[in-house]
Amino acid sequence: MSRTELEQLREELDGVNLEILELINKRGELVKQTAQAKENHGADKKYDPVRERDMLERIKKNNEGPFKNATIIHLFKEIFKAGLELQEKDHSNDLLV
Amino acid sequence: MSRTELEQLREELDGVNLEILELINKRGELVKQTAQAKENHGADKKYDPVRERDMLERIKKNNEGPFKNATIIHLFKEIFKAGLELQEKDHSNDLLV
Repeated sequence: MSRTELEQLREELDGVNLEILELINKRGELVKQTAQAKENHGADKKYDPVRERDMLERIKKNNEGPFKNATIIHLFKEIFKAGLELQEKDHSNDLLV
Repeated sequence: MSRTELEQLREELDGVNLEILELINKRGELVKQTAQAKENHGADKKYDPVRERDMLERIKKNNEGPFKNATIIHLFKEIFKAGLELQEKDHSNDLLV
């Protein structure tokens, strides 16, 4: 392996990082829209364990590795948690207006 | 908002989840390749704090929200940690052959 090959792998990693970043933020926007849509209907926009389990099942079913399901589930739970925090923040802002 | 709109948002979320899953696994493959490439050169393939800081800086610079940098950094540190575990696992396997 030449130095160039390592640099190329790192460039690819940086590229994938930014793609993941973009999708996590896109997901955040969708979570906000979903929360808003639910709120407009007077529905509880907070944590929905059934929906979370449903999403996790779909993710596990589609996991082809190299990461094990347990690792993937851990990462997605963190991503879901971040989404919930986004809703909390929005709700606090709502109270100020 | 109709029921259909909420369903549509959820379908979009499921789609984004699977895109994130695919990229996290693609990242895992790249991490494995990088570790292998380093090992072939007798370099330490483990945790590289300088490289991690470099990646996080690039990620922060490109973060357009809605997630705050602190949340994004937390999520990526978890993703990086998962990558390290993948290397550890590979290394253990190497010792068995």
